[in-house]
Amino acid sequence: SPGVPRGRGCAGCRDVVPTSERYAVRRLPFARLRESDVAFFERLMPGRVVTGEEEVKPFNVDWLKSMRGCSQLVLKPQTTAEVSQVLRYCYERNLAVNPQGGNTGLVGGSVPVFDEIILSTALMNQVISFDKVSGILVCQAGCVLQRLSEYVEEQGFIMPLDLGAKGSCHIGGNVATNAGGLRLLRYGSLRGTVLGLEVVLADGSALDCLSSLRKDNTGYDLKQLFIGSEGTLGVITAVSILCPQRPKAVNVAFLGCQSFDKVLETFTTCRAMLGEILSAYEFMDEKCMELVERHLKLSSPVADSPFYVLIETSGSNSTHDEEKLNNFLEQAVVSGLVTDGTVATDDKKIKASHCFLFHRSLSRGFVLWSLRERITEALTHEGCVYKYDISLPVAKLYDLVTDVRARLGQRAKSVVGYGHLGE
Amino acid sequence: SPGVPRGRGCAGCRDVVPTSERYAVRRLPFARLRESDVAFFERLMPGRVVTGEEEVKPFNVDWLKSMRGCSQLVLKPQTTAEVSQVLRYCYERNLAVNPQGGNTGLVGGSVPVFDEIILSTALMNQVISFDKVSGILVCQAGCVLQRLSEYVEEQGFIMPLDLGAKGSCHIGGNVATNAGGLRLLRYGSLRGTVLGLEVVLADGSALDCLSSLRKDNTGYDLKQLFIGSEGTLGVITAVSILCPQRPKAVNVAFLGCQSFDKVLETFTTCRAMLGEILSAYEFMDEKCMELVERHLKLSSPVADSPFYVLIETSGSNSTHDEEKLNNFLEQAVVSGLVTDGTVATDDKKIKASHCFLFHRSLSRGFVLWSLRERITEALTHEGCVYKYDISLPVAKLYDLVTDVRARLGQRAKSVVGYGHLGE
Repeated sequence: SPGVPRGRGCAGCRDVVPTSERYAVRRLPFARLRESDVAFFERLMPGRVVTGEEEVKPFNVDWLKSMRGCSQLVLKPQTTAEVSQVLRYCYERNLAVNPQGGNTGLVGGSVPVFDEIILSTALMNQVISFDKVSGILVCQAGCVLQRLSEYVEEQGFIMPLDLGAKGSCHIGGNVATNAGGLRLLRYGSLRGTVLGLEVVLADGSALDCLSSLRKDNTGYDLKQLFIGSEGTLGVITAVSILCPQRPKAVNVAFLGCQSFDKVLETFTTCRAMLGEILSAYEFMDEKCMELVERHLKLSSPVADSPFYVLIETSGSNSTHDEEKLNNFLEQAVVSGLVTDGTVATDDKKIKASHCFLFHRSLSRGFVLWSLRERITEALTHEGCVYKYDISLPVAKLYDLVTDVRARLGQRAKSVVGYGHLGE
Repeated sequence: SPGVPRGRGCAGCRDVVPTSERYAVRRLPFARLRESDVAFFERLMPGRVVTGEEEVKPFNVDWLKSMRGCSQLVLKPQTTAEVSQVLRYCYERNLAVNPQGGNTGLVGGSVPVFDEIILSTALMNQVISFDKVSGILVCQAGCVLQRLSEYVEEQGFIMPLDLGAKGSCHIGGNVATNAGGLRLLRYGSLRGTVLGLEVVLADGSALDCLSSLRKDNTGYDLKQLFIGSEGTLGVITAVSILCPQRPKAVNVAFLGCQSFDKVLETFTTCRAMLGEILSAYEFMDEKCMELVERHLKLSSPVADSPFYVLIETSGSNSTHDEEKLNNFLEQAVVSGLVTDGTVATDDKKIKASHCFLFHRSLSRGFVLWSLRERITEALTHEGCVYKYDISLPVAKLYDLVTDVRARLGQRAKSVVGYGHLGE
């Protein structure tokens, strides 16, 4: 019946079963690609038209290698005008189109189901403008998040979002999927930080909502419709986004907790005591730690615990921030919320801690972060992965893991839980 | 010609000229109200139907008394079901409807132009739920902002927005107009803090988007369309909103600046030095100060200056916050950005300042705030007011005032400029 997997598409074991075969999905009555269509696109963007099974394959299969489409054509426009011409042509010819950014999504939304033409934003990677006073960045949709991060950091700013996939994901895809990511707690959602969008609709018409005012109350805020619409309403071609100033001080703490309840209590305490400087609160269970240790040869900086918490602070005064963090850590240890921990400060100056339990080791923030950020990668080494990125009221978050674990029993090699609180 | 005022509607001088006469606007072919319509509404909501010229008048005229509609009927539903029944009836009868919250808007958007039925949210003033862990408040649209503020403050939270009109404005109206207000700098826009809405569409059907997840990526985020749509797409009947924790420490500084350029430079310096604790940055010109002194008998706490700045900090550690503020103030004085100033701390403990120029007087934060918040009120005492609430790139913000002043010359009693930077 529809919706029930017929086979398993797994990296390593065998080739990925096409999504359309795996689920009994029916192809809608779109036209089939002809030689003349390819010829049209070749004239429109010479050398930026990809055909041939092998060449197209990486665009057909998603990052987790669990979904596979059967597209025969990838187009790589460089400008909004080209996107517009492609869509107008496809609209008239009734050809289905699948917009694709960095193809880093974990829910199969970035690849075709059938033979949709893949419209890749890979070559739309130009920064259009950056205002050093306001921190407003305007860029094309295909800019890679990490490149943008590096670009604005050189000028004293940071991107308002950060994700594990930053090395490959495109800003346009981030906006189209309303990616929350690791900085949501501090800098809020893309609905607030995205100031403007340029979008090409299915019929090829371009919608210019590229405002760069922090607040623009003129008429309806149409761009909001495209944030999180996953390419179903149009193709995002350019983004205007507000970048916060780069924090002067960043600290990362990595802690061990004896239960998920303690993870939650630690969150409440830490929100109250770190207040405005808390920029990330991530948890992972012991199974995750086991996997990153086994497959990626990372090592845990703290004693074995059922749960681990990563806390990041970002602020404007390192003395104040470290004092706040120390006060919190002392409180967390004294009240038994946390049983072990380590702290890394951004400036490499490891200071004597008031809190004897904390080894202020040489562990730098990015080493601690990689334990959390590389879980997804470690999972792919285990075999087939079913990954669900969900939002639940925090109190119930981990019940889902326990329930699924009980339900699947021996049928799953491992069931793990990790993510951010406070989203 | 349309759009050109024919007369002046001014409080005090004469009765407000109806908007429809003042501007040559044409009434659309809506039905006229009948006795039988009023009878229907009386049966639907007995005792909550307002008729009679005098009784309806306050709902017909806006706060600035510059616009006047000619409605003959005000309805005060208490429930979403009643709003739905009213709209369904009006839709079938082709009667025009004007939703109204606290009627505190300054741009004439809250009152009818012709004989639209006024649908007031005044009696939809119930809190539906408040979650003390997450800070999520769900309430009816007619709740007055200040009452909500008091309600959540008792539980250790604050509303993410604050405006001068807080004593009368309704949360539904705030959302419908996408009010920015005094806390935008710190807590972001309603697009991020409003988690859900319940809306009744023109045909009476109710749209339930009352999610209370901080992030909900299921389907299109339709509620965004209603934020800032000013009642044109539907009537907001309930709001779910994320309240930040109440800051433990609040400080207010009131400063004098010698030019608007210094106001801007002070903003940049203060953003860099106060960082995450900066919660408001407001400016006003000397003319504003003159008016609040003359009409409201308030007195300036600092030496006469061409411009004044009000800075508020909100943070989790009073020692840290005061230290940051002192460092900034010292820097601002030494570098000549600021020529006089006073500081009020929330906890009444006035501490010795490192900075000799600052009289740490007994001026409490709310006294300093009232200088800024009561400008609008002072203006109404001057005579007729044309008020424009606009967003401009900060560098050009004050040019508008200078240009208008030059353009109007003697024809205007006074042209003043005030507002927030950083929106």
